[in-house]
Amino acid sequence: MPTPTFSARFRCADGCDFHAPLTEVVYRCARCGGLLEVEHDLDALKQRPAEAWKALFEARFRGGAWPLGSGVWGKKEWVYPQLAEENVVSMYEGGSPLLRLDRYAAELGLDDVWLKECGVTHTGSFKDLGMTVLVSAVKEMRARGKAIRAVACASTGDTSAALAAYCAAAGIPSVVLLPRGKVSTAQLVQPIANGALVLELDTDFDGCMKVVQELSQTPDIYLANSMNSLRIEGQKTLSLELAQQLGWRSPDWIVIPGGNLGNASAVGKGFAMMKELGLVERLPRLVVAQAEHANPLYLAVTAAGRKPGPEVEVVPVQARKTLASAIQIGAPVSAKRALRALAALDGLVEQASEQELADAAARADRAGAFACPHTGVALAVLEKLAARGTIRRGERVVVISTAHGLKFSEFKVGYHEGTLEGVAPRLANRSVRVAPTLAGVEDAIAARFGRG
Amino acid sequence: MPTPTFSARFRCADGCDFHAPLTEVVYRCARCGGLLEVEHDLDALKQRPAEAWKALFEARFRGGAWPLGSGVWGKKEWVYPQLAEENVVSMYEGGSPLLRLDRYAAELGLDDVWLKECGVTHTGSFKDLGMTVLVSAVKEMRARGKAIRAVACASTGDTSAALAAYCAAAGIPSVVLLPRGKVSTAQLVQPIANGALVLELDTDFDGCMKVVQELSQTPDIYLANSMNSLRIEGQKTLSLELAQQLGWRSPDWIVIPGGNLGNASAVGKGFAMMKELGLVERLPRLVVAQAEHANPLYLAVTAAGRKPGPEVEVVPVQARKTLASAIQIGAPVSAKRALRALAALDGLVEQASEQELADAAARADRAGAFACPHTGVALAVLEKLAARGTIRRGERVVVISTAHGLKFSEFKVGYHEGTLEGVAPRLANRSVRVAPTLAGVEDAIAARFGRG
Repeated sequence: MPTPTFSARFRCADGCDFHAPLTEVVYRCARCGGLLEVEHDLDALKQRPAEAWKALFEARFRGGAWPLGSGVWGKKEWVYPQLAEENVVSMYEGGSPLLRLDRYAAELGLDDVWLKECGVTHTGSFKDLGMTVLVSAVKEMRARGKAIRAVACASTGDTSAALAAYCAAAGIPSVVLLPRGKVSTAQLVQPIANGALVLELDTDFDGCMKVVQELSQTPDIYLANSMNSLRIEGQKTLSLELAQQLGWRSPDWIVIPGGNLGNASAVGKGFAMMKELGLVERLPRLVVAQAEHANPLYLAVTAAGRKPGPEVEVVPVQARKTLASAIQIGAPVSAKRALRALAALDGLVEQASEQELADAAARADRAGAFACPHTGVALAVLEKLAARGTIRRGERVVVISTAHGLKFSEFKVGYHEGTLEGVAPRLANRSVRVAPTLAGVEDAIAARFGRG
Repeated sequence: MPTPTFSARFRCADGCDFHAPLTEVVYRCARCGGLLEVEHDLDALKQRPAEAWKALFEARFRGGAWPLGSGVWGKKEWVYPQLAEENVVSMYEGGSPLLRLDRYAAELGLDDVWLKECGVTHTGSFKDLGMTVLVSAVKEMRARGKAIRAVACASTGDTSAALAAYCAAAGIPSVVLLPRGKVSTAQLVQPIANGALVLELDTDFDGCMKVVQELSQTPDIYLANSMNSLRIEGQKTLSLELAQQLGWRSPDWIVIPGGNLGNASAVGKGFAMMKELGLVERLPRLVVAQAEHANPLYLAVTAAGRKPGPEVEVVPVQARKTLASAIQIGAPVSAKRALRALAALDGLVEQASEQELADAAARADRAGAFACPHTGVALAVLEKLAARGTIRRGERVVVISTAHGLKFSEFKVGYHEGTLEGVAPRLANRSVRVAPTLAGVEDAIAARFGRG
């Protein structure tokens, strides 16, 4: 049997008859202005049996046949099949830890809780999974003669860090736009170190977005914005990797923090594709966890007593300040995509307050985690669903951790020093002053842990 | 053929006839007071052919058969064969990225340079590799009835972070000893979050070490100090994983930063074992990179015109302050072990100044890395050896990165803001202030990158 030719292209996510090659600079449907998604030739993929896909993915995983050891590019046929291998820009993404949180699970009355640490990566967040696809696509376009001078974004966080790192590896200029005086060098240290052109605009954030909109009309500046559907293809591999690490079995539940909601929709897409191609037998249930201070999806679904689905209308809200800064989003770009995923995966939406997310992160940390505040939101929601009996003992739960806790040292210091506004540090740990003698140390140990 | 029984035990690293089981609380040879090492029953290991070992290691790698997906525990027979699997305390260590640094290599006139990012882990440093073995060994001892109330260390850095995380996962009390007022909550945020008992002693660092020495006489407090040879067994898997990721081929060169030198000796041990058991055909050459401000091994070897080997006497020096704080060590505990590894791997020792390490880290970052200062030392040494023609085009080099750059944001901010003492920021990147208009942004892009 000849090797099938795998292919993928853009299509309108809302069903218009609009398609475009992945080498086109296009962000939205030319007909309806809606989001695009990447459509794979599933018939071609189905010509290879599920067992053969599993064996292929496993043989490549974390191996040395650069770049196929990457968790994303080891699944290249499912991500961006036509991409020339020499245009892959990889930082060896994926392969992140899938931890068993036994002691934390026991505290919740559960017994099969796992943490998928998508933030244990080169740039410290799950954004690497999507950015490797986006920057590789740009490299491919440039190799085919498209005049793209730079890739730009208007993020102050994980997106600009990932964009700058991948562009640096590829030798492609990257540009980060920010309102002047709002962001410190410390917050920008990753794009600065990775050589991005960091532009401070004499305006506020809305003013920046206006310029970014204008930039998106300029065909030689490519935009790495959150609506870019190439990124979803990379993030989708998180589902594949998760199933693979669990021996090609879906968990019962996946709990994921949700802001712009691209990630939730990517997880749904990955599982749907695996189910259709026979790599997993059933779909997990999906829980999207929102911060109470930025909860438009929660309001649209749970507060309204609706079952999540594409017919639910998400009304933008004014997001309030939250410790979970990366999901402080009032008008999620991927709400519709996420609602489809929630419908397909029999999903739920729940929220967590600042106090709840901070305590949940601290509780998990005491059992060995080092949770970022977004992961804290997901953990707090898990705690609620366990207390409510929705998630039960005997069910397997995977919580998606989206960033490395090392990016949020201030959050953790603030919690344990009791300086987070509106948060009582119920689980704070403090250092203890003792006399510099063996007896002094032994007394302190006995005071905390008993005499043994 | 029945499955061979694999086993390992402590032995005196200096050749005394002293042995002890791995379940014993013992740190030094009872005869000579020297370091111990873990001795494996190589004859038993040799009964399984090299190809079978490779296949076994690959089948387990990053997979879901907890805890064998761990990079350390997937090689359990080579690490701590007798350990009961239920006593393994794992944070899914290993499996870290092995990045190709093509653009950086090209700047150096090289073409096959890789970065093994041992800091892309749960706690953010390579220490996880050793700590998982140490804490698992303690769990095993406790399960067998040994009265160990807590595990203690006197570190302010990566060691205490790893110790606290693994102990938290295991439910074993951990204790961190520090001189009072010398360390901030921010520096201690990992052990604090992971629930360690952090003791601030009213004394200086020497005073702390005195109490730690006394503690080591207390059999119910286990010490996680740097002479502990169980940690070396875990760190050794870094070599195995590296070879595996390169398709079971040794690189030509490995460059590793060296302070206490346990890591360099672990790398040597891993390659020696693979060569003996037939998993690789030849050994790489080993380069130990020291900071000029803490260079006892460099002085003993290179400055004295000696070839590194066990007969070289390392004279302790007073380490000066260096940006590479984790290797600011004047009297390396594992000097002798490292000299043996250097002799076996036809090694070299070189040093880097503060300016050199900072520039090298910045240079690599501009090509996509995010190097910690210790990795900067290794990169600077690579640059010297490339300039000198010792390392040449066509040779494969792996640089060992020991910690995640996210742990060293201040170092990076300081470099790019020009505030590092004694370091001229030759490769600094600065943000640019522009008018909030499309023209303003386009002009800035053109000024930096040209008009396309």
